[in-house]
Order: sequence, then C-alpha cells, then structure tokens
Amino acid sequence: MKVAIFFGSKSDTDVMKGAASALKEFGVDYKAFVLSAHRVPEKLEETIKEIEKEGCEVIIAGAGLAAHLPGVIASHTVLPVIGVPVKAAVGGIDSLLSIVQMPKSIPVATVGINNSYNAGMLALQMLSLKYPDIKNRLLDFRKDMKRKFIEENAEGVEL
Amino acid sequence: MKVAIFFGSKSDTDVMKGAASALKEFGVDYKAFVLSAHRVPEKLEETIKEIEKEGCEVIIAGAGLAAHLPGVIASHTVLPVIGVPVKAAVGGIDSLLSIVQMPKSIPVATVGINNSYNAGMLALQMLSLKYPDIKNRLLDFRKDMKRKFIEENAEGVEL
Amino acid sequence: MKVAIFFGSKSDTDVMKGAASALKEFGVDYKAFVLSAHRVPEKLEETIKEIEKEGCEVIIAGAGLAAHLPGVIASHTVLPVIGVPVKAAVGGIDSLLSIVQMPKSIPVATVGINNSYNAGMLALQMLSLKYPDIKNRLLDFRKDMKRKFIEENAEGVEL
Amino acid sequence: MKVAIFFGSKSDTDVMKGAASALKEFGVDYKAFVLSAHRVPEKLEETIKEIEKEGCEVIIAGAGLAAHLPGVIASHTVLPVIGVPVKAAVGGIDSLLSIVQMPKSIPVATVGINNSYNAGMLALQMLSLKYPDIKNRLLDFRKDMKRKFIEENAEGVEL
Amino acid sequence: MKVAIFFGSKSDTDVMKGAASALKEFGVDYKAFVLSAHRVPEKLEETIKEIEKEGCEVIIAGAGLAAHLPGVIASHTVLPVIGVPVKAAVGGIDSLLSIVQMPKSIPVATVGINNSYNAGMLALQMLSLKYPDIKNRLLDFRKDMKRKFIEENAEGVEL
Amino acid sequence: MKVAIFFGSKSDTDVMKGAASALKEFGVDYKAFVLSAHRVPEKLEETIKEIEKEGCEVIIAGAGLAAHLPGVIASHTVLPVIGVPVKAAVGGIDSLLSIVQMPKSIPVATVGINNSYNAGMLALQMLSLKYPDIKNRLLDFRKDMKRKFIEENAEGVEL
Amino acid sequence: MKVAIFFGSKSDTDVMKGAASALKEFGVDYKAFVLSAHRVPEKLEETIKEIEKEGCEVIIAGAGLAAHLPGVIASHTVLPVIGVPVKAAVGGIDSLLSIVQMPKSIPVATVGINNSYNAGMLALQMLSLKYPDIKNRLLDFRKDMKRKFIEENAEGVEL
Amino acid sequence: MKVAIFFGSKSDTDVMKGAASALKEFGVDYKAFVLSAHRVPEKLEETIKEIEKEGCEVIIAGAGLAAHLPGVIASHTVLPVIGVPVKAAVGGIDSLLSIVQMPKSIPVATVGINNSYNAGMLALQMLSLKYPDIKNRLLDFRKDMKRKFIEENAEGVEL
Repeated sequence: MKVAIFFGSKSDTDVMKGAASALKEFGVDYKAFVLSAHRVPEKLEETIKEIEKEGCEVIIAGAGLAAHLPGVIASHTVLPVIGVPVKAAVGGIDSLLSIVQMPKSIPVATVGINNSYNAGMLALQMLSLKYPDIKNRLLDFRKDMKRKFIEENAEGVEL
Repeated sequence: MKVAIFFGSKSDTDVMKGAASALKEFGVDYKAFVLSAHRVPEKLEETIKEIEKEGCEVIIAGAGLAAHLPGVIASHTVLPVIGVPVKAAVGGIDSLLSIVQMPKSIPVATVGINNSYNAGMLALQMLSLKYPDIKNRLLDFRKDMKRKFIEENAEGVEL
Repeated sequence: MKVAIFFGSKSDTDVMKGAASALKEFGVDYKAFVLSAHRVPEKLEETIKEIEKEGCEVIIAGAGLAAHLPGVIASHTVLPVIGVPVKAAVGGIDSLLSIVQMPKSIPVATVGINNSYNAGMLALQMLSLKYPDIKNRLLDFRKDMKRKFIEENAEGVEL
Repeated sequence: MKVAIFFGSKSDTDVMKGAASALKEFGVDYKAFVLSAHRVPEKLEETIKEIEKEGCEVIIAGAGLAAHLPGVIASHTVLPVIGVPVKAAVGGIDSLLSIVQMPKSIPVATVGINNSYNAGMLALQMLSLKYPDIKNRLLDFRKDMKRKFIEENAEGVEL
Repeated sequence: MKVAIFFGSKSDTDVMKGAASALKEFGVDYKAFVLSAHRVPEKLEETIKEIEKEGCEVIIAGAGLAAHLPGVIASHTVLPVIGVPVKAAVGGIDSLLSIVQMPKSIPVATVGINNSYNAGMLALQMLSLKYPDIKNRLLDFRKDMKRKFIEENAEGVEL
Repeated sequence: MKVAIFFGSKSDTDVMKGAASALKEFGVDYKAFVLSAHRVPEKLEETIKEIEKEGCEVIIAGAGLAAHLPGVIASHTVLPVIGVPVKAAVGGIDSLLSIVQMPKSIPVATVGINNSYNAGMLALQMLSLKYPDIKNRLLDFRKDMKRKFIEENAEGVEL
Repeated sequence: MKVAIFFGSKSDTDVMKGAASALKEFGVDYKAFVLSAHRVPEKLEETIKEIEKEGCEVIIAGAGLAAHLPGVIASHTVLPVIGVPVKAAVGGIDSLLSIVQMPKSIPVATVGINNSYNAGMLALQMLSLKYPDIKNRLLDFRKDMKRKFIEENAEGVEL
Repeated sequence: MKVAIFFGSKSDTDVMKGAASALKEFGVDYKAFVLSAHRVPEKLEETIKEIEKEGCEVIIAGAGLAAHLPGVIASHTVLPVIGVPVKAAVGGIDSLLSIVQMPKSIPVATVGINNSYNAGMLALQMLSLKYPDIKNRLLDFRKDMKRKFIEENAEGVEL
C-alpha cells in the first residue's frame, strides 16, 4: 500500500471515490479507512502507526463541517497529508477553512471542495518524486489528456 | 481546580485572560495550559487525563485559524468543553466555523469571537448546576450588573 | 423536567427533534415549547420563570434568521442556554452569527448549524457535573460509540 | 420627544451621533438612552412604555455583534423601529444580519453599517407623513444638498 | 393609493405578494408597478412623480442581484422607501448589500431577504404615525398575533 | 475627450487617480466628474448627455458601498461603462456585488476592488478597436512591461 | 469573426449560450472554442494567435471554480477580454473573485455570475466604438427594450 | 536545486521568506524567482522548463488577488505545485479560492493564507518520500518541536 485514504463517515464514500479512481488509473496500491478524529481518536492513532509500518507514503483525508481529520492525522505523522474539504454546510467553506488554515509546521496539502480526484492526482505527483515510472505515466497522462481534450473539442461547439 | 483553560500559543494569552478574570471574580479555581492539538497531541491527551483525575469539571479551550484544539479535547473527554474562536485571519470566521461545526455526538459549546470572558461566565453557569453558592453569586452578579448599568447610564447620554 | 427546549415555530420541529432524541437516549426529562422572542415576549418571560420554578437546569433554544431567541432567554435567566442555529437563509450563517456573538456577560453555548442533537448531548454533559449516573452513562455512550463505529467499519470500505 | 435613540453601550456614542445630528438639523426633539436588551431587559421594556406615553413616534436603535436590541424593541411596540448595525467584528456583517433578518410581522427598518445619520434621515421621512413642515424641510434639504454638491464640484476635479 | 409597490420584473411577483397581503389585511390602498431602474429609468422617474401627485405616502421596492431599484427611487423622492432584497444569486447577500449600504442622506429602510410581508408591515407602521386607526389596528394585530400564537401552541409540541 | 471618469465623492479622488494615470501614459484625453447617482441624479443624466455630444467613447465610474453609480450611468447610455468597486466597508465586497451583478442587457465591465488603473487600461483596450495607434502603443506597452519586469527581476531575489 | 467565445468545458455550453444569443441578435460574427487554460495551455495560446490573425476584436471567456481562463487569455493579448464567472461552487463567489481581482495592467472586464448575455452585450458596446451601425442598433435595441418593457407591464400587475 | 519558489512581485518577498526559512533549516537547495503568470507568461514557461532540466522536484508558488500563478505553473508541469494564498484584499479569501479550487486533473497543494513556512514544510515532506535523510530530519524536527514546546510552556502560564 502506497497511499492510505481516510474519511470520517461512510456517507462520504461517493465524494471520496475520485481519489481512488485516480490511483487505480495509475495502478497504485491504496487502502481506504473510515475513521473519525473525534469518535475514535485512539483507533485513528493506531491505524496511522500501522500504515506507516506497512510502508504507506502519502495520506489522503476527507472531512466535512469542522473538518479536523486531515489536521489531526498530520499531527501524528510526517508523511505528507492531502486534505479534501467535503461540502456539507455553508457551501463547504467551513470544511475548507478548517483544513487549510493549519498552524505553522504542520501543513495539510489542501485541494478543492469535494475534489478528491485531485487529491489522488496530487498523491501521484508526490510519489513520482521517488518512482520514475509514475513520473513517466504522469507525463503520458498529461499528453493523453491534452490529445483527448483537443479531439473531443475539435469540431468546435455550437452555441 | 474546577476549570482548565487550554490554548495553543502564548501569543493568545491576552485574548484568553477574559476567561480567567470571570472565574477569579467568582473565586473559582482554575489552571491554564498552553498546549497544541497539532504540535503536542500526546502531551495534550496526557494532560486531559490528569486534569480529569484532579477533579476538573469544565474545560475552556481557545484557538485560532483551523482551530482544532476544542474539538480534539472534546474527543478525549465527556466533560463539557467551551470553545473560544480566536481572531487571526479572515476576521475569525475560520476559527468560528472550525470550532462550532462539530459532528454529531461530540459538541463544543462555542462562544463569540475573542469573547473568552463569556467562556468563563458559561463555565460558571455550568458549575452552578452543582454548586448552589455559584448559582447564588450568578444571581447577585446579574442584579449588580443591572444596577450598575442603570446607575452608569442614569443621567442619560448626550448625543 | 431537567431540560427545556424552546423554538420559535412549529416548522422547526424536525430540526429540533435531535435534541430530544439525545435526551431520550439518556432517559432525561425534558419539555418542549414553541415560543417566539418577537411574537410573544411576555409569554416567553413567564415560561422561563415557570420552568425555573419547576427545577429546570439547562435550556436549549433553536432559532433561524435574526435568531434572537437563545440570547433573549439568556438575558432572563442564569441557567446555561444552548443555542441551535437553524438554517433558513444564506446557509444559516445569519442564525449562527445572531446566536454566537453575544455581548460580554450573557453567553449562549452555541452548537453547529441544525445540529440540535449536539445541543442535547451538551445538555447531558452539563447535567453530568451534578448527576454521576449521567456522567457514567456518557462514558458508556462514548465507549459504545467507539465500539460500534469500529465494528461498522471493521471490514473496511470499497472505494 | 418625537424620536427615541437607543444603543447598548456608551462605547457606541460616536457611531450613534449621526442620528442625533440629522434630527438636530431639522429641529426635531429626541432623547437618547443607553439600554441593553441583554443586560437590562426589564428596564428596556419599562422605558419603551414610558417613551410611548410621552408621545414618541419613531425609535432608532443601534447595536453590534449579535445585535438584538432593535428586534427586541420592535417586539414590544408597534412604533416603527430603525436599526443601525454597528461594526464590531467580521466587518459588521454579524450586526447587519442580526438586525435585518427579522421574522414575519416584526420588521426592523435597517440602514447601512455604522450609518446612523441615515437612521436619523429615515426617521425624518417617516415623521414627514404626519408633519407637513418636516416634509417641506426635507424637500428643501434635498434641493440644498443638490445645489451644494454641484457648487462644490463645479470646477471639476484634477486627477 | 397610500402605498406604491415597485419591482423590476414579473418574475418577482410571487416574492412581492407578501407586501400586498399585509396591506390588504389592513385595508390600505396600494398599487403595484413593474418598473426597472436600469431598463426604463425615465418611465420610473415619471411614475414616481405621478404617485407623489396621487398622494402616495410610502414606497416599497423589491429587487435582486445588483439591486439598485430602491436606492434609485429614494434619490427621486423624499417619501420613505422600503427595500426588499430579492434572493437571486449568492443567497441574496448581493441584493441585501446593494440595498442597505446607501450613502449618507439617502436612506432605504431595508427588510430581510425575500421578506416582503415585513415591508408591508413596516409601511403600515409608518402610516400609523398619521392615521390613528391604522395604529389601533396594528395594536389589535399584535394582540391577535400573540393570542393566536399561544392558542396554536397551547398543547405543547411533541419532539 | 475620449473617456469620462465619474465618481461619487471627492474622498474617492486618490483611488480613482489610477484610471487617469493609465490614460495619461497613452496621451488619451479624459475629463473627470464628481457626480452622485443618489444626490444629483438629474445633473448626472445631463452630464451623460453632454459628454456623449462631446464625443466621449468610454465611461469609467467608481463607487463604494451600495455602489449604484456605474449601473445607473449604464442605464442612460449605450457607451461601454467600466465600474471600479471602491473599498469602503466589509472589504469592498458590497461595492463589487453592487456593480458586477447587473441585470440582463445593461452590463457594467467590472474591474478589481480599488483597481482603477485597470479601468484605465481596459478603456484603452476598448479604444484600440477603433484607434490603431492606441493598439500599437498597447502592444509596445506590453513588450515594455515584460522587458522591465524581466530586467528588474533578472538578478533573482534573496529569500 | 469579430468575437471569440472561450470556455473550459462542454458542460458550460448552456451558461455560455447567452453570449452567443446577444451577438446573433445583432448579426455579429463569432466563433466558440472549448479550451482550458490548465489542460491545453499551448493550444490556447495558439488559438489566441489565430483568432487575432483572423481579425477577432473582442474575446469573451467563461470559467468556473478557480476561474483562470479569462485572465490567462488576457495575459496573451491586448484585445479586451470579457470574463463570465460560471457558478459551480460556493455560489459562484470563487469564480467571480478569480476573474475580477486581476493584477495591475492586465484587466478582465467582468460581468455578473452566469450572466453571459451581458458579456455579449458588452462586446457589442465595445464594437460600437468602431462600427457605427452596431451603435445605431444598440440605440434601437434600448428603445425597443424600453417600449417592450412598458407594453408588457402596461396593464400593471396584480399582487 | 530541489525546490523552486515563485512569486509574482517583489512586494511579496516578506510573506514568502517563510518557505525559504523552512528549507534552509533542513539544508535543502532552493532558488527563488519573481515571475508573473500575467505579465511574463512566456518567461514563466521557459523558466519552468529550465528548472525541470536542472532537476527541480517540487515547486512553491505564492500569489495574491486573482492568484493564478500556482495553477498556471501546474498546467505546465507534472511536478507537485504548492500554492500560498497571499493576503491582499478581502482578507485573502480571493487568493485562497483562486488557488485551491483547481479543475479536475491539475491539483495545487494549497496551504493557509500567508503561511509560506508550511509550504516549505510540505515541500520537505514530499522530498522525504525519496530522501531518507530528510525523512529522518523531519522526525527529529517533530521531536524537537514537541520538546521545545513542552519546555517553553513547562512552567504554565499566568492568566
């Protein structure tokens, strides 16, 4: 397992699928955990230790409302933690601010509201520092993305 | 010690003095701790256990930015936790939302931005459930507050 | 009756059910009142005096828009008042700010937008200062919550 | 006294002077009261009854934070109540929303943040329904305002 | 006609019905106009002059988005103008700020977002300065409102 | 005169200087007017007619708070109107929304808060459609801007 | 082709149709391109050069979220660029701020959230500087708009 | 050079120093560039290609207002890009949203407003995937941080 994906409630499963789908596209091993910073803090700490032992290299964590999960995880590890603000109330601004405004020394790499696909993509970019094949596949992915985008829109659009 | 006051950085000392001053007015024992949810999570958990053993009955916690401290404390105790959003960026809205929007089952009793005096007053109201003398002093305090307010403004105001 | 639950309109009944359900889980007596700070201020003051005589120990009040109900109640009693911002316009930010930003000396213990369950839970935490059996049940509740959370998510989640 | 001006704290005196200055320009009698909806609710109710007896016709009320004063006054009278949101935190948006978002049937005529002069001017417009001389002076005031504005800016401006 | 109701588009008819319904309850004559500050400014100015000649005493104006209608009307008359922010985008905050933040000397009496009923009620309160029977009916209305509210909620509510 | 610059109060002179400075750099004739949509609406309409007769081709208008000036001007002309939101309260968001959220058919070309220089630059871009020399100078300006930027930052920066 | 319309995704087609419909009403040639600043930056730069060669005079660009497209286009051309904030998250405030708050010297003429019709109208106003027939048709359009508006609302409205 | 730090204007130097200071503490090579996405887009693209050739592994980019720099860089590379929202207007919310709300496939790892130190720290965490010594030093840094925090606050704090 290279990437661990955490989120606080099964109800966030759909939002968090994007992260997994990015990792699957690149054949990168991941494992998902439903764990809450507030309900099962001890289990969360345990699990962080376990995934570190199993060689996990990047953590993705999604949370809504007063979204503490990514920051609490970051306080227990030096692995890079990617935070996904999940939209639940007031348009997701509460989750975004609760995740991004971390204090000095304990960063969380925050992506857009509900944009877990980008969390997966960012994890791949981080892993590509170490794994040249992921780097190469990222370069191919970009080329493909460009090619497809241009193909799909080649005929122009009727307004 | 009946009340423990936590905050994440010495730089918040001035904002948090209000809480202590309310408790002092009522002669209620308290102890203050500078402890960060993100920097020293283990020390925080330890301290929560210690203050519970020492008979602490209410916890006040102040924090700014992605203000996780009150919520993280609340996840480690069933004592009532009062949260003080400290103004640091974007007018304190980030701290307010990070504190008040807690998930189901783990509440934080949130007061106004930078209004730690009200956190102290709320702690006294909670304690008054058990301690009739605090209840009586709260009733006197209200009467005095009203009397003083009326005296001070008795002559009217020149606009 | 240990807890009184106030709200300003029958249309908020569904949002406020959470508070009652938390109290019911713990077998704590409560009574609910539909009373408006603006429409029937005298009746509200009367009712506050009555519930105080009947031994009420904690008040929960939910309101939307320019949500004055919790603050107006707090100005007529020294019992702790828990405020529930009800979402009605602009995402509930109007209710939240109208409830949480109380002036010095008259706090309202504010919980998350529409999160009346947490208001019930906070009332229980306050009562637990005085009633050791509620304290014990809160400790059991947390243990159960953890156990259930872990059981429910034991098999992991498929992303 | 035709107009009563209420505000919750002597510290708002400067902000509220604008209301008085508009009324003075028109020679309209007013009286100012420092009275808090939360600290001295009974005194506030008493005073509203007194000013009604003295023939008060319009009420102006300024308040900051969880600004309940104008709405609470409106719940005790059918006189028109003009609310002035006083800037205290988060740019005054908290005061504005706490004043303007009143429930059905109990309106508060809200003016701009800290713009108590406009509260005075609006009071004059309301009084002009009944007092033709105030109406005439308002018409003159507008003419003068236009004339002066044009004179002052007649020479153009150098950018 | 005592009250003129303006709004900028037939699509706002439903939102503005509340204003008319309050006036109808009190038997107060009104007339409604669909007129836009931006599309037909000359027609708007003409109409303001006409309604003034016909003895109109209070103006209600509803508008959404960059809601200029109430302010533009206020610049052409000294009659009191009541503004109704109509919710169209970003939760109605754009309309609210565009209406309430008027410059010195040209107030608009702003009510809550989409709350045109309160605009009608406020118009009645203004008219009551001059018309004692409206004042009496407002006092009766309040008494009735209180009585009905208490009756409707007499049996309590089941949570 | 190719460009007319309007603003509502001499106190906005400093903010609006940027617009003039951009036009001066390109030697484009402009004239500035202090005129308020709310205080002198008739004078404003007159002036718009005059500048149209004098051959004005683009209008820049700056305003704060409930910033109606650009929109009101746009309703009286088909010349392109550029709006500058002037920061006065709540960080300038009130001005921005009051200017940009114009109804269908009457656009205002809005630039950033207090960024009147960009209003000048945008006016130049519009004029360049008709005047090839302005187009050429804009191309030179961009080249110079790039060259200078690179020169100034050629040595890198010490962090 | 006088006008080029850019947007970042086929899913924005409906929102952007308004721009085209305004141009069609005036018989002005346009061409639409689905092109993303982030996915195909090189293709975007190429296309800007091509449309400039083909004589394009005004550019309209719509984008949502972190809406960079209009600003990135503006950095590659001195043609006037009109930005349409497309509503995607947090009510469109993210798109609006990402488009309007451009740095000194590189303006984007921003219109209201989702209001692409106004982008088309603004393009026409810009073109009218050079093309007297567009100017005349704009004057006719305004007259028609006024006439139709008055006709449609001539019978008044029933509230 | 392992890390490249970009920002759009020398005036942001102070805010961006934090990033450099974190990297210096760990002895990691970096290079800083003042480059604007809007003013010198070609130079920016060139520089990105150069730093990639020189072996740069992580990019940090700070920007204010409509903060496009991090996103534009991310569109030209698959290296991980860390974005620092610089506070310039409306409390930095404009910069934050312009950076974090990136479209699918092109993430920017966003840190808190003005918190460039955390950008440096996040870069170190990313590099630690590949460089075991950085990983070890991060673990030591955390231990030291904890030790120092506890030492500094050992004597408690006087409130």
